[in-house]
Amino acid sequence: MKLRFLGTGGGVPSKLRNVTSIALEMLQERKAVWLFDCGEATQHQILHTPIRPRRIEKIFITHLHGDHIYGLPGLLGSRSFQGGEGPLTVYGPVGIKRFIDTTLSVSQTHLKYPLKIVEIEQEGVIFEDEQIKVITKWLDHAIPSLGFRVEEKDRVGTLDMEKISSLGVKPGPHLKDLKLGNAIEWDGIIIDPSDVLGEPIKGRVATILGDTRVCKGSKELMINADVCVHEATFSSEQTKMAFDYFHSTTTQAASAAKEMNVKKLLLTHISSRFLPSEWKDLEKEARSIFDNSFVVSDFEEEEV
Amino acid sequence: MKLRFLGTGGGVPSKLRNVTSIALEMLQERKAVWLFDCGEATQHQILHTPIRPRRIEKIFITHLHGDHIYGLPGLLGSRSFQGGEGPLTVYGPVGIKRFIDTTLSVSQTHLKYPLKIVEIEQEGVIFEDEQIKVITKWLDHAIPSLGFRVEEKDRVGTLDMEKISSLGVKPGPHLKDLKLGNAIEWDGIIIDPSDVLGEPIKGRVATILGDTRVCKGSKELMINADVCVHEATFSSEQTKMAFDYFHSTTTQAASAAKEMNVKKLLLTHISSRFLPSEWKDLEKEARSIFDNSFVVSDFEEEEV
Repeated sequence: MKLRFLGTGGGVPSKLRNVTSIALEMLQERKAVWLFDCGEATQHQILHTPIRPRRIEKIFITHLHGDHIYGLPGLLGSRSFQGGEGPLTVYGPVGIKRFIDTTLSVSQTHLKYPLKIVEIEQEGVIFEDEQIKVITKWLDHAIPSLGFRVEEKDRVGTLDMEKISSLGVKPGPHLKDLKLGNAIEWDGIIIDPSDVLGEPIKGRVATILGDTRVCKGSKELMINADVCVHEATFSSEQTKMAFDYFHSTTTQAASAAKEMNVKKLLLTHISSRFLPSEWKDLEKEARSIFDNSFVVSDFEEEEV
Repeated sequence: MKLRFLGTGGGVPSKLRNVTSIALEMLQERKAVWLFDCGEATQHQILHTPIRPRRIEKIFITHLHGDHIYGLPGLLGSRSFQGGEGPLTVYGPVGIKRFIDTTLSVSQTHLKYPLKIVEIEQEGVIFEDEQIKVITKWLDHAIPSLGFRVEEKDRVGTLDMEKISSLGVKPGPHLKDLKLGNAIEWDGIIIDPSDVLGEPIKGRVATILGDTRVCKGSKELMINADVCVHEATFSSEQTKMAFDYFHSTTTQAASAAKEMNVKKLLLTHISSRFLPSEWKDLEKEARSIFDNSFVVSDFEEEEV
């Protein structure tokens, strides 16, 4: 699992930071890329990465402000134009369907793949399969804004080859059965998976939040996350502005990360009012509270 | 009058050519910039030019395909965010209002300036003031597509200072009256503007066409134009593809320019299937028919 930041600016694009989009790449795990938000020119940013639009399997929209959705119609169209045929699901607050339907219909864009749009009205689990669970909660912003917690399920431990050998079991396809949790019979002996498998491998947790003040929902999604992507539109001194505009400061995000036992905090949605020379200061502010904090930049990659 | 190309690619953005947008800068003439089409990331391209969004007075949309309109909501929003307060008018085919209204409404974008949307249903003059006239005609594309002919009106000739001096007229504010076409009295003599003004200065004509096959409408808009911006999605050999997809080849555009007595032909909407090394070949094809042809690139400027 790897995060790749496609846009890390707030509100309007600047030369150095595009508006919001974050890719969660799971190519090894499920041959897929998920996007979180899709600000204008996300498809342009993707041109400068190894991401192939056809690999994008799901797009999660945190909220409907333009800097988080205006890149959707173009990306959906280009994915089709470039031969994407696999299904794509877009999740977002109510209104996202009208936005997509109208923009594609007015422009007479006919997608060559099945597009499913899921409008989220309630908190909870919005997606789950044998590999991953996605939980959403409401945040505290000027308009309905969602946070997403991507929980990878624990994976089966590795086979203890020494134990297997000591039991006299030879290599072969039956080892796969053991990995899948099925007992096998070998030379008249029943071998249970628990006899030969190591500890389960803990699933990773990535929390990605939309624009928000620190709130109950954001904190609940952050608990024990390996990585949390949190907005930091304002610096530590701009507490009043952050409150008035329903955003967070660097230190508010850091305090929440510390309180919720997050392992790594990635700060994004950086306002263009900050000069590049100030980005390190923003990071320092956060680190004064939670040491493992980073202000991310466009095209930065982070292993989860 | 100056054209500045913000996007010269066809269909989808590539690393080297963005999707369509063309600025007609008239800063000296009317302190304004007009845009023709507004593909995704037009506002991003503008960041790399001296254009200030607040100076954009009119946006003409040729047709509703995504590569010509998906940058509109972002540009309209950013113009407001960056303090644009002057009125803005968008002209385009029927559907453009639904597109703009829905995208701004879903994203809860509240513009701080008056936005007027004019849906064009008929050919003819769609704008005229004392300085400029804009004429539109239907082209021949897969969906309704418009071309625009921007005609600058003839301007009053320059004052012949030798003649003025020989008549004994001294410099002063009365000279402005003569320029405005009013007779003046000087030492008992009536001086008519025609006595002292040179030939009227011919207004310039810029024709900017949407996606199209060469057709009656496109040709009528091209007659005697100083500059014509014409699409050339295909090379001279791809006549069948051009026809099937309702586009033009380099040589079709050049033939029309020659026939219609255009002074300069600027070819745009260049497909990303052409490598940069092939761009000069496309230009050569056009020049084999009409010598004053140019394949334009993003950020290129052309005096009209």
